[in-house]
Amino acid sequence: MTLNSIKRVNITKINGATVADTSDALAIEEPLEIRLEYGPVDERQVKNVSVTMRTPGNDAELTTGFLFTEGIIPSVDAIAHVEHCFIACAENKENVMVVKLKEGVMPSLNHSERNFYTTSSCGVCGKGSINAIRTVSIYKNKTGVQHTIDAEVFYRLPDVLRYYQDAFACTGGIHASGLFNLEGELLLLREDVGRHNALDKLIGAAINHSWLPLDNHILLLSGRASFELVQKAAMAGISMIAAVGAPSSLAVELAAEFNITLAGFLRNQRFNIYTAAHRILLPANENTY
Amino acid sequence: MTLNSIKRVNITKINGATVADTSDALAIEEPLEIRLEYGPVDERQVKNVSVTMRTPGNDAELTTGFLFTEGIIPSVDAIAHVEHCFIACAENKENVMVVKLKEGVMPSLNHSERNFYTTSSCGVCGKGSINAIRTVSIYKNKTGVQHTIDAEVFYRLPDVLRYYQDAFACTGGIHASGLFNLEGELLLLREDVGRHNALDKLIGAAINHSWLPLDNHILLLSGRASFELVQKAAMAGISMIAAVGAPSSLAVELAAEFNITLAGFLRNQRFNIYTAAHRILLPANENTY
Repeated sequence: MTLNSIKRVNITKINGATVADTSDALAIEEPLEIRLEYGPVDERQVKNVSVTMRTPGNDAELTTGFLFTEGIIPSVDAIAHVEHCFIACAENKENVMVVKLKEGVMPSLNHSERNFYTTSSCGVCGKGSINAIRTVSIYKNKTGVQHTIDAEVFYRLPDVLRYYQDAFACTGGIHASGLFNLEGELLLLREDVGRHNALDKLIGAAINHSWLPLDNHILLLSGRASFELVQKAAMAGISMIAAVGAPSSLAVELAAEFNITLAGFLRNQRFNIYTAAHRILLPANENTY
Repeated sequence: MTLNSIKRVNITKINGATVADTSDALAIEEPLEIRLEYGPVDERQVKNVSVTMRTPGNDAELTTGFLFTEGIIPSVDAIAHVEHCFIACAENKENVMVVKLKEGVMPSLNHSERNFYTTSSCGVCGKGSINAIRTVSIYKNKTGVQHTIDAEVFYRLPDVLRYYQDAFACTGGIHASGLFNLEGELLLLREDVGRHNALDKLIGAAINHSWLPLDNHILLLSGRASFELVQKAAMAGISMIAAVGAPSSLAVELAAEFNITLAGFLRNQRFNIYTAAHRILLPANENTY
């Protein structure tokens, strides 16, 4: 989070019988438009591929991550240039990102025309969606890796995330995605009012570091694990996802299909494992049923 | 919530040193496609206007609410028929809704082509978005109503919502929208994996009851108040919104513009008032600064 991610406003604070005029920090939410420029030199096309409500900051990462996780570009090598719309836009430059693809690279927009925001690769049934992702993801076979981690490592993740979140965010209205190594060390943290944006920023940053596939990492989600988030994680080759909140049914189906370890309700030294439990070294103990 | 909103899966539950094989209820997440059929009898057009990830149930309400809050139809009178795709679709009938508009009614799709899921009326800066909504909303002047409610009424709302939520949802992964009257009585409750869907379902139900504008009601959101949710509320003429979570900056700006009372962090006998505090009768007390 940067300072331009937060806005301070005057509020009335009610606490039982006490009323106080004070101020509060809000997470900034502004639209971001992503414009794609592609095609041969003499026939460049410009297409608006997405408008998303996001918290300003890390816009280039968000853009790169979005284009990759939605399957619009096959890799970061497709991109010649990503920047805010400083030249062509008269106003709101900071809310428009222009992505120039390299000559000869065509974006894959066919399966995503209908709706970007949810899941461009989404069919109309869950199975269709999962199949579409399987086709598009270049890391499908990578998530079969056999590393394991100790349950104890999992317990620490939310505290680490919260520690670093507290340092920057004081709004109470921000989703975070954290990327950890198998020792439970935090490598990347990104925040946004939109959970999908936080993850796109994180994956965009990992792409810029040339870290993909992220098959030796753990992704921690500060909230729930929806289909869309597991889809984006699958696109980046992530093999372990831990969520502080609940997963949805389709998130679990997709994780199972991709052999991704999916844990939910990770808090207070507890969690549930929904899929691919073999990667987690369980406490050696008396099982209780 | 109906029974088809929940799916039971086998999980491994880790609690400190205890491991148990058990089961867990997940909120079902499936895509819903909304198809619009419109135009003169001899030239009917079919257009896919949205794919959203939703929890099955109340699909007709979701569809009606979505079309209205996104400004695609001016009122429910535009609709001749809303139903699942029983005839035209070979499969996934339950995930496709077909909406037939009455002859002569044209949907307003121009400002929404680019992106539906966020905010069809959204420009690229916040001000642009707010202006667009002001133009589209038919209840702009209705929210000036002068009713007031007691802060005590606010305190009770989350408990009431949770009481009824607990009766149906056991997944921990569901967002809820509740509609209350000024006495704090719950009139409607809708749930979904997507917070915008929960609100669309609620507003769709209110439309079917002919309750709009909802200027004598309180909307309670189980989570955060984003721009998109305040936008949908504004479209329905809602004058008071209370959120259990934090509002975003743009949500507060939009609420101020529409003279909507917006309260956040409503929990444990506390809340913050961000806009239009005049509608809330504050505790008669010693102000502390």
